[in-house]
Amino acid sequence: MRNLRLLIEYDGTDFHGFARQKAARTVQGVLEAALQSLLKEPIQVIGASRTDAGVHARGQVVNFFTHSAIPPERLVVALNKRLPPDLKVLHAADASPDFHARHSARSRLYRYTLYTRLHPSVWRIRYAFHYPYPLDTERMAYALKPLEGMHDFRAFCIKTPPAQDTVRTLYRTAVRRTRDTIQIELEGSGFLRGMVRLIVGSLLLVGRGRLPTDALQALLQDPTRRLTTMAPPQGLCLIRVKY
Amino acid sequence: MRNLRLLIEYDGTDFHGFARQKAARTVQGVLEAALQSLLKEPIQVIGASRTDAGVHARGQVVNFFTHSAIPPERLVVALNKRLPPDLKVLHAADASPDFHARHSARSRLYRYTLYTRLHPSVWRIRYAFHYPYPLDTERMAYALKPLEGMHDFRAFCIKTPPAQDTVRTLYRTAVRRTRDTIQIELEGSGFLRGMVRLIVGSLLLVGRGRLPTDALQALLQDPTRRLTTMAPPQGLCLIRVKY
Repeated sequence: MRNLRLLIEYDGTDFHGFARQKAARTVQGVLEAALQSLLKEPIQVIGASRTDAGVHARGQVVNFFTHSAIPPERLVVALNKRLPPDLKVLHAADASPDFHARHSARSRLYRYTLYTRLHPSVWRIRYAFHYPYPLDTERMAYALKPLEGMHDFRAFCIKTPPAQDTVRTLYRTAVRRTRDTIQIELEGSGFLRGMVRLIVGSLLLVGRGRLPTDALQALLQDPTRRLTTMAPPQGLCLIRVKY
Repeated sequence: MRNLRLLIEYDGTDFHGFARQKAARTVQGVLEAALQSLLKEPIQVIGASRTDAGVHARGQVVNFFTHSAIPPERLVVALNKRLPPDLKVLHAADASPDFHARHSARSRLYRYTLYTRLHPSVWRIRYAFHYPYPLDTERMAYALKPLEGMHDFRAFCIKTPPAQDTVRTLYRTAVRRTRDTIQIELEGSGFLRGMVRLIVGSLLLVGRGRLPTDALQALLQDPTRRLTTMAPPQGLCLIRVKY
């Protein structure tokens, strides 16, 4: 069996997230169906990150096992012909037998994009969160910084099963502003369910002065509390997975 | 009665063109419905250009008459709340009573965008035509140039009623390349039905060497012939209307 690794991108607007579901259109479901129709064998795809409904990806990585001998570059062309306009393969390569898109990943980089001009833009509304309020980005960067490092991010998760391991490492955080666009980047070992959008949701309130700058940091110490303000999915994009 | 002028933009993907139709979602239909619900009176909108199904606009201009006294800037905010994500107003202003979005227009600028890299991009596929073939853009610019000026563009129309005036003036043509993107711009007094996409369709064949460089020019002289190769709508965008 070959272990093939794909780099894929998708516009998450019309997908109910990455993970396969019985009755809904998902990235995994559509990709597996296209692979099965091309390779004429059952295919199970493993993804690096389970992005939520409406979240985009520029650099999602998946792998799967196949008996096929198809050359990787030909697989990309043939597969893209079978995939819908909002899901495409950028690259394919043979991987070592023990490569696992999720477990082998060393880090994931997520970017949240918002724009603050008064009127919404039809070109950006699918790919960024329209938030027409003044934001203090220095305050936001300052509030975000203490999350870097290894922490129990239990408070930064939409629901936690009792015994789950909620320790993750954030390698890098950044808040960037260019004209009316603000990008918040988080690179970490892994992210809990909803973690990036919960952090961004509270960070927006910090940026408007409605929450103190230590609001996020305080939650690292207090396992009884939970973040609740969630930024909407269209602003979020999985940029890169490192191995 | 006030005569109000709006600058609007739309993602044409999910519209059946600009012009109102009974059973289909159109820009004019959606805009008129939003205006009527806001202003509580029947509204008829006049558009500068009747873009086809799937064609986008960054700078479409419309006008309409109203008894309302609403300030223009408040109209923009209130209207955008009632408009769907793919149709937004950028600006509103009072116009003189004789201003007519279509008849008063001196020129329209259309841009056709295509990209030539091998693999389609999920981010561009709605807004540009994916055409993964080598194109000689100098040859295209050379073939396009003779269309500038005042001509009978009868051959450059998808269907012509017998006695219609098919004389138009093209003020400026341009073919620009940046990396894997090619933009074809046409600025003219007005355009016949399908004219830009018919010109682009033939120009692509010129760029690949499948039509001679005088293919377009030859049609200006021969009223019995007709262009037939039409570029798809997603690459086309109405950029600006001048008055």
